[in-house]
Amino acid sequence: MKNIAVRHIERADPATIDALGEFGVATVHEALGRSGLLQPTLRPIYPGARIAGSAVTVLAHPGDNWMLHVAVELCAPGDILVVALSAENSDGMFGDLLATSAMAQGVRGLVIDAGVRDVADLTAMGFPVWSKAVSARGTVKATPGSVNVPVVCAGGAVAPGDVIVADDDGVCVVPRDRAREALEASQARSRKEAETRARLAAGELGLDLYGMRERLRAAGLRYVDE
Amino acid sequence: MKNIAVRHIERADPATIDALGEFGVATVHEALGRSGLLQPTLRPIYPGARIAGSAVTVLAHPGDNWMLHVAVELCAPGDILVVALSAENSDGMFGDLLATSAMAQGVRGLVIDAGVRDVADLTAMGFPVWSKAVSARGTVKATPGSVNVPVVCAGGAVAPGDVIVADDDGVCVVPRDRAREALEASQARSRKEAETRARLAAGELGLDLYGMRERLRAAGLRYVDE
Amino acid sequence: MKNIAVRHIERADPATIDALGEFGVATVHEALGRSGLLQPTLRPIYPGARIAGSAVTVLAHPGDNWMLHVAVELCAPGDILVVALSAENSDGMFGDLLATSAMAQGVRGLVIDAGVRDVADLTAMGFPVWSKAVSARGTVKATPGSVNVPVVCAGGAVAPGDVIVADDDGVCVVPRDRAREALEASQARSRKEAETRARLAAGELGLDLYGMRERLRAAGLRYVDE
Amino acid sequence: MKNIAVRHIERADPATIDALGEFGVATVHEALGRSGLLQPTLRPIYPGARIAGSAVTVLAHPGDNWMLHVAVELCAPGDILVVALSAENSDGMFGDLLATSAMAQGVRGLVIDAGVRDVADLTAMGFPVWSKAVSARGTVKATPGSVNVPVVCAGGAVAPGDVIVADDDGVCVVPRDRAREALEASQARSRKEAETRARLAAGELGLDLYGMRERLRAAGLRYVDE
Amino acid sequence: MKNIAVRHIERADPATIDALGEFGVATVHEALGRSGLLQPTLRPIYPGARIAGSAVTVLAHPGDNWMLHVAVELCAPGDILVVALSAENSDGMFGDLLATSAMAQGVRGLVIDAGVRDVADLTAMGFPVWSKAVSARGTVKATPGSVNVPVVCAGGAVAPGDVIVADDDGVCVVPRDRAREALEASQARSRKEAETRARLAAGELGLDLYGMRERLRAAGLRYVDE
Amino acid sequence: MKNIAVRHIERADPATIDALGEFGVATVHEALGRSGLLQPTLRPIYPGARIAGSAVTVLAHPGDNWMLHVAVELCAPGDILVVALSAENSDGMFGDLLATSAMAQGVRGLVIDAGVRDVADLTAMGFPVWSKAVSARGTVKATPGSVNVPVVCAGGAVAPGDVIVADDDGVCVVPRDRAREALEASQARSRKEAETRARLAAGELGLDLYGMRERLRAAGLRYVDE
Repeated sequence: MKNIAVRHIERADPATIDALGEFGVATVHEALGRSGLLQPTLRPIYPGARIAGSAVTVLAHPGDNWMLHVAVELCAPGDILVVALSAENSDGMFGDLLATSAMAQGVRGLVIDAGVRDVADLTAMGFPVWSKAVSARGTVKATPGSVNVPVVCAGGAVAPGDVIVADDDGVCVVPRDRAREALEASQARSRKEAETRARLAAGELGLDLYGMRERLRAAGLRYVDE
Repeated sequence: MKNIAVRHIERADPATIDALGEFGVATVHEALGRSGLLQPTLRPIYPGARIAGSAVTVLAHPGDNWMLHVAVELCAPGDILVVALSAENSDGMFGDLLATSAMAQGVRGLVIDAGVRDVADLTAMGFPVWSKAVSARGTVKATPGSVNVPVVCAGGAVAPGDVIVADDDGVCVVPRDRAREALEASQARSRKEAETRARLAAGELGLDLYGMRERLRAAGLRYVDE
Repeated sequence: MKNIAVRHIERADPATIDALGEFGVATVHEALGRSGLLQPTLRPIYPGARIAGSAVTVLAHPGDNWMLHVAVELCAPGDILVVALSAENSDGMFGDLLATSAMAQGVRGLVIDAGVRDVADLTAMGFPVWSKAVSARGTVKATPGSVNVPVVCAGGAVAPGDVIVADDDGVCVVPRDRAREALEASQARSRKEAETRARLAAGELGLDLYGMRERLRAAGLRYVDE
Repeated sequence: MKNIAVRHIERADPATIDALGEFGVATVHEALGRSGLLQPTLRPIYPGARIAGSAVTVLAHPGDNWMLHVAVELCAPGDILVVALSAENSDGMFGDLLATSAMAQGVRGLVIDAGVRDVADLTAMGFPVWSKAVSARGTVKATPGSVNVPVVCAGGAVAPGDVIVADDDGVCVVPRDRAREALEASQARSRKEAETRARLAAGELGLDLYGMRERLRAAGLRYVDE
Repeated sequence: MKNIAVRHIERADPATIDALGEFGVATVHEALGRSGLLQPTLRPIYPGARIAGSAVTVLAHPGDNWMLHVAVELCAPGDILVVALSAENSDGMFGDLLATSAMAQGVRGLVIDAGVRDVADLTAMGFPVWSKAVSARGTVKATPGSVNVPVVCAGGAVAPGDVIVADDDGVCVVPRDRAREALEASQARSRKEAETRARLAAGELGLDLYGMRERLRAAGLRYVDE
Repeated sequence: MKNIAVRHIERADPATIDALGEFGVATVHEALGRSGLLQPTLRPIYPGARIAGSAVTVLAHPGDNWMLHVAVELCAPGDILVVALSAENSDGMFGDLLATSAMAQGVRGLVIDAGVRDVADLTAMGFPVWSKAVSARGTVKATPGSVNVPVVCAGGAVAPGDVIVADDDGVCVVPRDRAREALEASQARSRKEAETRARLAAGELGLDLYGMRERLRAAGLRYVDE
């Protein structure tokens, strides 16, 4: 595999990206026809963050965070770093110094299929990270990887410029050319859910609201008294 | 396996249930002779919740949350949904809509050996969940399971109507016909612990308070100076 | 293996210990030449704790917390209990009573390669714990282990009297006779990082600040426009 | 929990048990309506074993194999030891001496949600074991558990006298009073599968043989040329 | 996500595919510049199999093997089924009937990021499978997925028609348009390794053969006598 | 941490080492008072190997096998390579070329807390390996570690020159200065077990042979008829 860093990537429309961020992961994932979700092993380092941005992708090697420095230069304001590993690893590849640098470039957050450290500092700085581990394990800068190539991160394919949506529920990837479609489907879903929520809150049952009783009976569910 | 939904279940005495909830998981588990605990893979989605209630059990299939809709109808105020899976799964089978519906029926919380989503919303609503994962992964409604049958959830057997106690330490199951016994044992244990706590806080050692020194010596422990 | 409890251990200089605690895990781990870190499976039960102290080590058996009572007596103010297991275990070997007793002896916290319980109480008491699980599972007091012998805890070797530093990033072990060296290296590293942080915050890139561009080119990284 | 050893248990009809063993795990599990299967974490220590027998259940504590000695006395020829743990454990609770003793009593094999050791000897003896680990870790004999009580082993409920079927695919539990029903359903399934197998081997497609094409179309599957 | 089944896919040159199979996974993975490897969680059900073929990809849902029946029809002789899951799952989605049908179509083997069953039969049939679990857990046929779309399987991206190489070391994916390049690089690597092997077998050290001594010294390695 | 390679290490008496190997892991582990065992995550790549030898220890970094080349030069006939990692890793750090080189130096086998590849070749060569993964993932040679320093491998402390015993049950570490003691205890244990085995084979029960009945009664075990 050649080690390359791609300077220019296409990004989705900024207003669409921001609007997707407001809907959050569950809604956008459903709007995409239940796709795009990264594995739930990725967890936020603090609760309450909800961001969206354009993926600047990184392919790094276990125990080596060199490529993150390369990637930061290639980020534009509004981007999210997405770090995939060539092999399973939980080392702390990112900490407060890289976060300081990334924030200075306008980066909105980090998604990394490895570890992160200085989480108290990152929390204080308000720089959100979704990672599979918290680990202070230091890394080397010895082996090049790539930046802005297609990667597989936490079980999902991510291309440079894809829209990343991340919140307390995890991380969802929206292919760049489906961003608009995803937003419209999210809006439709959200409107419908608001009405559903009101009816459920009023005590109406999902069985009736969704018309499930007959289908359940046909599928073989039998009610017994005790 | 037949797919059935049992309409009526026996529940323990409400005052006993509430009193068990005040003692919390660790005390009740010890009061039961160190039994009833579900695996520690179940974690609360937010800290500080402590609930007790009657189990309405659900047996669901991986990636399919259909039976949760069936179960909500069969819940009475004070119940807790307990969802077991026929096979390992971490999908987000429960979210804010189901929580809205469950709260409208008076359900106190959810214990699920799978994933949950919309955790920011559930936290804001004050609907506590103990799950093995947070995941936005959407599910289908295609294959029936059962409601209010005996299940194995997170390594523990749960019968419909058993008392569930859940807090930051995890989840404990009290067989319905042992609820009164568990409460009395919890009360006795709690009284005794209050006195022990005071003596330990005053600097008395557990070795002396519990009279362990002679037993340790007999078991072969030897003290050396360095 | 003989079961012994060693009464007197050497400890590092108290001022050095406290100063290491202020630097935190990531800095001290780097200052030690990237060594000493325990596995990231150890997580704090609440965020924000940062402690340092002298290790009183415990070797315990799965499901048996007897030796923790022995260890508490051998703790001096400023110590940290470090509990290793002879085999993998997640039982709740430590709870609010042991914490009350440990606090009365001046113990600063607990590092345990097993489970802990009563975490709501421990949080309220401000007694920090780094554990691999939260579990209410009760334990027996049947089989002796040892106190203040060298142990392997969460993948790291710990000798009695080693300095333990623990915070939101995990746990680091500083060999007692390297405490002074670790402190000096931490101070040097911290001074250097402060300057680096300021330059990165001002927008300077790590690539330039660390002089990486030429090395990356030599290592084969190639930039392409798209 | 009281510690009891139950001397006499009901067993299923021996001929039914043996016949179930010949069908194997996958067929019997399907015949039970896809129930009864223990978690796939249980693996055989050598390939090729296929047994069936009556469960003599053991509830043991982590790191303590005392109850296995109690259980061996209560086994009859044709029985299978089923060992559940009160908490997660991988210690080597069973080895060649216990196997020698068990074989002398006519025990057909062991299912254990923990570790096993002396696997080379057990293989040479032809004593099959399904365990979640191979570990030489020695255990104590300090804390009593129970024998022939209902247990949860590897995620499945097992009652004393239930029929255990185990082979290279894993372990299946047949409730004692459903053994006859399971056998008849296995026979029917097996007959049907033989015919299906022949047609598939001749090149007929499952899509046609099972009549799936129309249902797939109705469910939304669309064929495209490329 | 639309549910589609793509009828026609491009495949690599058959002779190239077979030649890649002879080199095996480690060599081909290195020849690709250390890429293409699926996670080591995928293990063969029996030792000794070594195959190569064209990927017919399947995206299936947890607990649902419907799409495998669709896929078998779309296989040509020499193909390998590659089954990805929309969410983590270990159910036994493939057994001897599907294997019989697949073999009748000329399929060479199966790679599945889930479970497989009837492994004794599959071994007897000589139908190799790389899976992440062996499980008899039965599945439903209720929810459509897709066939011959790009998937992520066990952490790696697989496109329909990519060349799959699988042996005791695991599974490697060769992008279709890089098959020829991978073969040539494998041939070159293999020739070089044969010479290296002979020299190492004769006692020459890798340190000398690879000329590592100076680089090690420059990197800071210091030899001490004891 | 300084990166050093220690040229000369002390080894135990060769006859003692070989004799320990004949007893195997379970016996030696028990003879050491139930200590020395590495975690059961280490598994042999093929069944039936049983070796003993002197540990030449390696501390390597994730994804980097450079130090293994350094270590091979420092091995004497009869040694066993023991590779610890500075952080969790499953890459294939060792394959047939390194095995060829190691065999040429008289190395008896490899214990590695990471991955191994070319397992079919290693099996054919009769070079046994205990690893936590089989993976073809290639590694770099970029960052120095150390050879013949004390390490923690798979949860156990290993010093250079310690005796390693490995078989189908796993891996046990005998501190060099306890080798003679371990051998004598193994001999005593083995003699005693031979007699025990004969009595158990003749149908005598462990309960009687070990005199457990009274202790069980005192510990609270109660027999009931059904």
